[in-house]
Amino acid sequence: MAGETTITVVGNLVDDPELRFTPAGAAVANFRIASTPRTYDRQSGEWKDGDSLFLSCSVWRQAAEHVAESLTRGTRVIVHGRLKQRTYEDREGAKRTVFELDVEEVGPSLKNATTTVTKAGRGKTPQQAQQAAADPWTTQAPQAPQFAAEPPF
Amino acid sequence: MAGETTITVVGNLVDDPELRFTPAGAAVANFRIASTPRTYDRQSGEWKDGDSLFLSCSVWRQAAEHVAESLTRGTRVIVHGRLKQRTYEDREGAKRTVFELDVEEVGPSLKNATTTVTKAGRGKTPQQAQQAAADPWTTQAPQAPQFAAEPPF
Amino acid sequence: MAGETTITVVGNLVDDPELRFTPAGAAVANFRIASTPRTYDRQSGEWKDGDSLFLSCSVWRQAAEHVAESLTRGTRVIVHGRLKQRTYEDREGAKRTVFELDVEEVGPSLKNATTTVTKAGRGKTPQQAQQAAADPWTTQAPQAPQFAAEPPF
Amino acid sequence: MAGETTITVVGNLVDDPELRFTPAGAAVANFRIASTPRTYDRQSGEWKDGDSLFLSCSVWRQAAEHVAESLTRGTRVIVHGRLKQRTYEDREGAKRTVFELDVEEVGPSLKNATTTVTKAGRGKTPQQAQQAAADPWTTQAPQAPQFAAEPPF
Repeated sequence: MAGETTITVVGNLVDDPELRFTPAGAAVANFRIASTPRTYDRQSGEWKDGDSLFLSCSVWRQAAEHVAESLTRGTRVIVHGRLKQRTYEDREGAKRTVFELDVEEVGPSLKNATTTVTKAGRGKTPQQAQQAAADPWTTQAPQAPQFAAEPPF
Repeated sequence: MAGETTITVVGNLVDDPELRFTPAGAAVANFRIASTPRTYDRQSGEWKDGDSLFLSCSVWRQAAEHVAESLTRGTRVIVHGRLKQRTYEDREGAKRTVFELDVEEVGPSLKNATTTVTKAGRGKTPQQAQQAAADPWTTQAPQAPQFAAEPPF
Repeated sequence: MAGETTITVVGNLVDDPELRFTPAGAAVANFRIASTPRTYDRQSGEWKDGDSLFLSCSVWRQAAEHVAESLTRGTRVIVHGRLKQRTYEDREGAKRTVFELDVEEVGPSLKNATTTVTKAGRGKTPQQAQQAAADPWTTQAPQAPQFAAEPPF
Repeated sequence: MAGETTITVVGNLVDDPELRFTPAGAAVANFRIASTPRTYDRQSGEWKDGDSLFLSCSVWRQAAEHVAESLTRGTRVIVHGRLKQRTYEDREGAKRTVFELDVEEVGPSLKNATTTVTKAGRGKTPQQAQQAAADPWTTQAPQAPQFAAEPPF
């Protein structure tokens, strides 16, 4: 792609991520983050919280499962991805527009936390990995055992 | 400030910018841009336009006047600034949220155009420039002649 | 491409841009910018210049010609592109690494200047434009008259 | 600060992070990452690795300790911070320039890994936290027991 609008947002998860699967079996995790800037007030000499930015995020495939296994409400995360816009009609038939972040990379911030990192070793061949990177809506469903064999914690 | 969400967007002005002044006399220009990514379609071997991202932008003070003087509907621009969110009540009393870009730097793109650049030489002393950089809503109104001498077009 | 490191830099041209042509006739403009952050010193209550960041930039094809025609030493610009690293051997045979910005979009900033924008109208068909976007080193040389018809200022 | 050049880089740690302390007792962790873009080759229909970008990163205070405790050679990380340049004289007296990333936020990527996140609960009062955010070189040394209680690995 070319000419996309990429963005990095640092914020806290407002809720636990929600993991779902497309009819074709591809995983997608949705989560919402609140990013709160701080302003230095010269008169009081103190930092104050500014207005929060709330943003809905979607992450696909393996990373979606990793997000669901690793992040919970309140976790501070770094999210990097493409800013997208979606228009829909509400119940009254009025057009509404929402902004969403199509996540390319996400991970917990180490500012106020430590993490134990476990590399995902699924014994995938490069070709399987490539398949997994294809369009999630048209991808063949992964075999059930693969998921069953993977307790989330 | 710290922890702000900065973003760079490249797009085309949907309309001419609108220049207004706060009661205190500070200039603000509002404009809206459409940013359209292109996707390479492997099957057809062609680039296709993706969904556009529409974003409202605000720019303040001197730069606001420069925007009003320099940009028109259709101009391709590079905009760099802070992504902000504003919540308001619509006529039915429902809460609506809009995203806006608080512009730090903006300029015309040289991808499909050339520009003649004229440095703004207003004979301002550094102190005046510093004043101009203060909070626009509380800043004292600039003397009328300064603006009168400067028709926006 | 995927996984590229994109960056937006705002700075001033250290010198006039240099325009050259590949053996195949594609234009490339090189320029160098200095980006100087300002820090607010709480004790003195003043803004102070921080250390400048110097970065070499390359821009290709049509945009290269537009850069050469539009920007000069001192112009404040917004540059958006990919951060790249290049390793070479110096005269003593030691390996040196330089960072460069592969420019995607560049334009003059409107912070301290106004611009007159002239759209490049070369009567190119979409196919010619597509050709122009191909690999600059293998592209056929543009016909001489095209360039001759275009005085740089 | 204003006018800084911020950047987000995704890459893998080339080595384990190195944790050191300033004479005043502030922690700083240094690590180096390699970021490798992938290019889609239209002729072969395959993705190929591009040239890697190597970047030295510094992270301060609490986050430095968290980095040392959480990341190891090979970990894929998301790093967000300010791009800086430092000039020094080499042994021959020649001036050399290096680029460095002054890290604001860093964390492990969930693309190929899962993480267990442990919030750092040090029972700090907001004032202590504010102190910790002050200039690390002038900050008073933290009490020894605090560090002693926290083996880095």
